[in-house]
Amino acid sequence: MKFSKRMENMKASEIREILKLTQQPEIISFAGGLPAPELFPVEHMEIVSQKVIQNLGREALQYSTTEGYNPLREHIAKRMGKMNIKASFEDILITSGSQQGLDFSGKVFLDPDDIVICESPSYLGAINAFKAYECQFREVATDKDGMILEDLEKTINDNENVKFIYVIPDFQNPSGKTWSLERRKGLLEIAKKYDLVIVEDNPYGELRYEGQHLPALKSMDDDGRVVFLGTFSKTFAPGLRIGWVCADHELLNKYIMVKQGSDLQTSSMSQRELSVYLDDYSLDDHIDKIISVYKKRRNLMLDTMKESFPQEAKYIIPEGGLFIWVELPETIDTKELMVKAVEEKVAFVPGGSFFPNSDTRNTMRLNFSNMNEENIVIGIKRLGQLLQNEL
Amino acid sequence: MKFSKRMENMKASEIREILKLTQQPEIISFAGGLPAPELFPVEHMEIVSQKVIQNLGREALQYSTTEGYNPLREHIAKRMGKMNIKASFEDILITSGSQQGLDFSGKVFLDPDDIVICESPSYLGAINAFKAYECQFREVATDKDGMILEDLEKTINDNENVKFIYVIPDFQNPSGKTWSLERRKGLLEIAKKYDLVIVEDNPYGELRYEGQHLPALKSMDDDGRVVFLGTFSKTFAPGLRIGWVCADHELLNKYIMVKQGSDLQTSSMSQRELSVYLDDYSLDDHIDKIISVYKKRRNLMLDTMKESFPQEAKYIIPEGGLFIWVELPETIDTKELMVKAVEEKVAFVPGGSFFPNSDTRNTMRLNFSNMNEENIVIGIKRLGQLLQNEL
Repeated sequence: MKFSKRMENMKASEIREILKLTQQPEIISFAGGLPAPELFPVEHMEIVSQKVIQNLGREALQYSTTEGYNPLREHIAKRMGKMNIKASFEDILITSGSQQGLDFSGKVFLDPDDIVICESPSYLGAINAFKAYECQFREVATDKDGMILEDLEKTINDNENVKFIYVIPDFQNPSGKTWSLERRKGLLEIAKKYDLVIVEDNPYGELRYEGQHLPALKSMDDDGRVVFLGTFSKTFAPGLRIGWVCADHELLNKYIMVKQGSDLQTSSMSQRELSVYLDDYSLDDHIDKIISVYKKRRNLMLDTMKESFPQEAKYIIPEGGLFIWVELPETIDTKELMVKAVEEKVAFVPGGSFFPNSDTRNTMRLNFSNMNEENIVIGIKRLGQLLQNEL
Repeated sequence: MKFSKRMENMKASEIREILKLTQQPEIISFAGGLPAPELFPVEHMEIVSQKVIQNLGREALQYSTTEGYNPLREHIAKRMGKMNIKASFEDILITSGSQQGLDFSGKVFLDPDDIVICESPSYLGAINAFKAYECQFREVATDKDGMILEDLEKTINDNENVKFIYVIPDFQNPSGKTWSLERRKGLLEIAKKYDLVIVEDNPYGELRYEGQHLPALKSMDDDGRVVFLGTFSKTFAPGLRIGWVCADHELLNKYIMVKQGSDLQTSSMSQRELSVYLDDYSLDDHIDKIISVYKKRRNLMLDTMKESFPQEAKYIIPEGGLFIWVELPETIDTKELMVKAVEEKVAFVPGGSFFPNSDTRNTMRLNFSNMNEENIVIGIKRLGQLLQNEL
């Protein structure tokens, strides 16, 4: 049996495999990027799903257009407006989570050996999605304010066939870093200078626990070179699999064509359920609730890390999002550490998979949204003890 | 802005564009492949969706495994068993409709210029899905019993890089043809002789209105070379977007990896809703209802065609499925006819798009599942009049 060449590059996502290991209920897992299920608006969804079945039952069970359910596209366009992104519903394509927006970005732009420029480290799921199109990656170093723009420009000059720059400017996964306004503007200037597309992935932008909101790249995009990927997975619920692509009309048409061949459309039912929820309830109020819980969890994790992690562990305080990124002394291999951690009933994601090219073994990503406060304290202490033992 | 090479081959699906045209309620449309919405089990789904939210609410809103919800995989494995296909739940991957199974088949197997062998004509959605991987197509002629096996073998011998043979053995879309047992066995022998994969697409197999059920290729597959694609879109409801891939474990793992990068997983909610429906109700009873309605509609369409179509219009009687395929004299261009038909408030799909290579203009596909009996009679008479005028 002969598979396509792309299959040689692909391996099962390490996060997914780790998540399987950590599904035993007694494990305290900081591994996934799962939202807190106790915050899901289950009662409201009960009302909403009844309403959808009763009022829109037949159309919710029928095929519908590839672009998505228009009232939901309108809701999203309005939310984009709040972020100063000018978009009509026609600039929105509903996708099955933003993971599908990543896959489609690969499909629309990438030929074998084309270059994707990304932050170092970058989101594992995006790396895997793009890899399926046999691209190569160039990682650009970052400091606390985002990509170092001189490095970015050098990387562009050193490489032919750069197709797009992939970034997560707000509470980056996995590093937790947020780009400064200056860097955002600088990135747009460089993209314009070299006529490159930017894929802006923004799953956590609305989950800010401190500091000032910064404008999305797409809100400053005056010539249609930014593709914005959004999702309701972190602000509402991932189980419905609803995300979106926002892009200028002509470019969005390419994504729509790709969606037709890939899965025709996202669930008619889920789209209507979410749309009616947005009609009847305030997502902003719901997000406020999420923020207040996650902020506490973040603070508690940081406080406990301060107490129990060895001084050699370095990390920045993320102003939002779901993750704390830890850099350890080079003597520590976090893949090996993970085996010991699972024995101690605590889990994290070893950082290596977030670097598409380099072989970095001394980092880990910790998620603080999914575990309750008690488990955060117990789990971080266990991890601290393990780290102390290693040093 | 530079797109990938694959985008040069891709154009918006003609069916989808036509469906948009025909969304005006006054048009009698035989164009889509839509099931009859009045048959959707809306009342049962109301009960089921309440039950899922109340009993499984948090997990239905949370991320879950890429492979799919295990109880649903078990249900599907059991249904496969009824078709004499030996499968455990581990041989089933839940996809977002069988369209996604088609896309993944392209992703797993196809490099640029690889060859896909298909029936002539073949399913437009499959052609579009595979085209995204820059393959080429070789069409094999069919008679009333399926592919002509001598032509198939010659096509294999004439071409390098044949990756798989794509077939719809039951009530083929668009031709309505069903492969004989002998041809099925012959296809499997040829696939074995040349060590080729078969992608068996079976969206309508359970919708048989007359004649004997014939064994699926997968049920006779003794060395794991058949990938079976199934869906609940035609037997339950397409709006949930639930299909599946059934393949041997090692091969299925490739599809699972591809699914991870493409959209992580299919809706946790939809999977649980369907699974609880299958726990609590009889899908077989529901399918019996669908069959009795569609059979009447098919018969009525055939009777009306007999009365009002010109004798030069040729078609076979499909034993199941959703479509009647019509071959017209070569003087008729159905794309041009379609414009006149829409003026007369009736629609169909011009057959040209079902031929990946050849430029066949004198065919059309008629769907009989979506329109009620009154509209079938009115619409077919209008179409008959148009055809009479053309000849």
